[in-house]
Amino acid sequence: MRIVLSGAAGFIGSHLCDRLLAEGHDIVGLDNFITGSKENIAHLAANPHFRLIEHDVSKTIEVSGKVDAVMHFASPASPNPDSPYGYPQLPIQTLKAGALGTHNLLGVAKASGARFLLASTSEIYGDPLEHPQKETYWGHVDPVGPRSVYDEAKRFAEAMTMAYYRYHNLDTKIIRIFNTYGPRMRLDDGRVVPNFIGQALRGEPLTVYGDGSQTRSFCYVDDLVDGIYRLLFSNEHDPVNIGNPAEISIREFAERISAMFQPPSPITVHIERRGSGDPQRRQPDITRAQTVLGWSPKVPLDEGLARTVRYFQTKIPKQRS
Amino acid sequence: MRIVLSGAAGFIGSHLCDRLLAEGHDIVGLDNFITGSKENIAHLAANPHFRLIEHDVSKTIEVSGKVDAVMHFASPASPNPDSPYGYPQLPIQTLKAGALGTHNLLGVAKASGARFLLASTSEIYGDPLEHPQKETYWGHVDPVGPRSVYDEAKRFAEAMTMAYYRYHNLDTKIIRIFNTYGPRMRLDDGRVVPNFIGQALRGEPLTVYGDGSQTRSFCYVDDLVDGIYRLLFSNEHDPVNIGNPAEISIREFAERISAMFQPPSPITVHIERRGSGDPQRRQPDITRAQTVLGWSPKVPLDEGLARTVRYFQTKIPKQRS
Repeated sequence: MRIVLSGAAGFIGSHLCDRLLAEGHDIVGLDNFITGSKENIAHLAANPHFRLIEHDVSKTIEVSGKVDAVMHFASPASPNPDSPYGYPQLPIQTLKAGALGTHNLLGVAKASGARFLLASTSEIYGDPLEHPQKETYWGHVDPVGPRSVYDEAKRFAEAMTMAYYRYHNLDTKIIRIFNTYGPRMRLDDGRVVPNFIGQALRGEPLTVYGDGSQTRSFCYVDDLVDGIYRLLFSNEHDPVNIGNPAEISIREFAERISAMFQPPSPITVHIERRGSGDPQRRQPDITRAQTVLGWSPKVPLDEGLARTVRYFQTKIPKQRS
Repeated sequence: MRIVLSGAAGFIGSHLCDRLLAEGHDIVGLDNFITGSKENIAHLAANPHFRLIEHDVSKTIEVSGKVDAVMHFASPASPNPDSPYGYPQLPIQTLKAGALGTHNLLGVAKASGARFLLASTSEIYGDPLEHPQKETYWGHVDPVGPRSVYDEAKRFAEAMTMAYYRYHNLDTKIIRIFNTYGPRMRLDDGRVVPNFIGQALRGEPLTVYGDGSQTRSFCYVDDLVDGIYRLLFSNEHDPVNIGNPAEISIREFAERISAMFQPPSPITVHIERRGSGDPQRRQPDITRAQTVLGWSPKVPLDEGLARTVRYFQTKIPKQRS
């Protein structure tokens, strides 16, 4: 298949490129590099099946030639207000990637009669009042809160995708991605995995915000990509959660990472929770993914973390091992 | 002030034109007439302070000359799937009016340093779990349900408006409009007020869907327009509900309209509720409007209905009075 993939140079997008190329597909990648990184796709430069167009998806684009699938993965995605790559620093770009970007790429898919896959997010559940979150849960999002630039953009993107399915008979799919980690995350994107590993590698204490009892569920990126790939070739049109339901408290997570280093990194606790609207808990119900895609996560946390640490070790001057 | 007003030929937009012109302002009205009506603004054709540009707000526009305020009132707004003017029949246009339209008009405001007022809606509360709805309630909306083309477009529009306020320092305002009625509604837009009055004027029974216990709160359009006008000249940036908190069941409402005719119209009850996602109850908490705008509704329901019936009598061949 010939696949248009936006956000091809991003953390998830670049892993998706590797998998799609390995499966024999051709990729037209789009990225404007405001959060994506040229380094993530440098190894594909000479691949004749990969072509990169530097393009902002919020502006219209026509892709020449036949297109079989369009996958929209372009968006800032870190909620951290202190990171230059967090969506609070890129609010208008985030809103535009979600709404105008989705509209433009649905147009590309419609013009070619191609299937369309939207990368949505567990953030559409907001600060959820139900645990774990099923796809039928409507979510709990503040439309005018500081995180709404991302959450509402993705909710809008889902609504528009479903409208193209219902009214233009486009073959659309929606994946709701929960916390994912792995190589090619940005060390400074402000999310907890690169934060902790970066601190440990620099010999600094791991900083836990809040009392550490808030939980997360971490999915290794290869597992996620496998779920995306299965969804792309499925007949599902309703949203599907992909994530790892294994819940872990941030405190315990810090301890697991600390224990990977010798000597173990100390952990410091900052009682004040960081970032307004940071959810206390979020965990996918993956019954649908298991049932309709035959998917479940395979990579254990310790193995995924070990691979991720090895990646970050190449990025940080080696101070300890 | 010189005011750009989208949706100028709509039900609410055209009443807003009358008020703004009466207050001495100049209007550049925009409308693409997919739900607006030329008849609603025919009386303004010779007014030198009013200019109409036939334009779809989902396409970019540059307005020449100084602009002091931009007001975005363009959108299909009836949830009725059977009406040609309902947003279920105009799903893509509705999504685009909310997202692309808001983006374009925020751009017009930003280019001129003009204030911006977004017409949002009580629909952002969805099928609410809290009564009455305060502005701080986050709502209960299905992002992929059939009504999401309107609800999520408006939630997105709010998020984008707040982002322009927070990050571009634009002077923005957001009004959340609850059920409004009055002259210039479309007889066939499928909403309950024109439905009931049209049926009564044609000598047909008034049809109540569901058991009739579901409630609505109806605000007369002149009251709404007064709230909009006050908000435009306020320093409020957070959303403000404007609506009439007086709650009435659909059954009782049908009886009130029936009683305005001689002989009274019979009422027939269709047990099946019409339209998926039709909320059981919605009622504004208007404490903020009272406090920050000094606004409350003034027109009693019977008086507003009498004015509305007189308007519809001019539209329907007189069969009874």
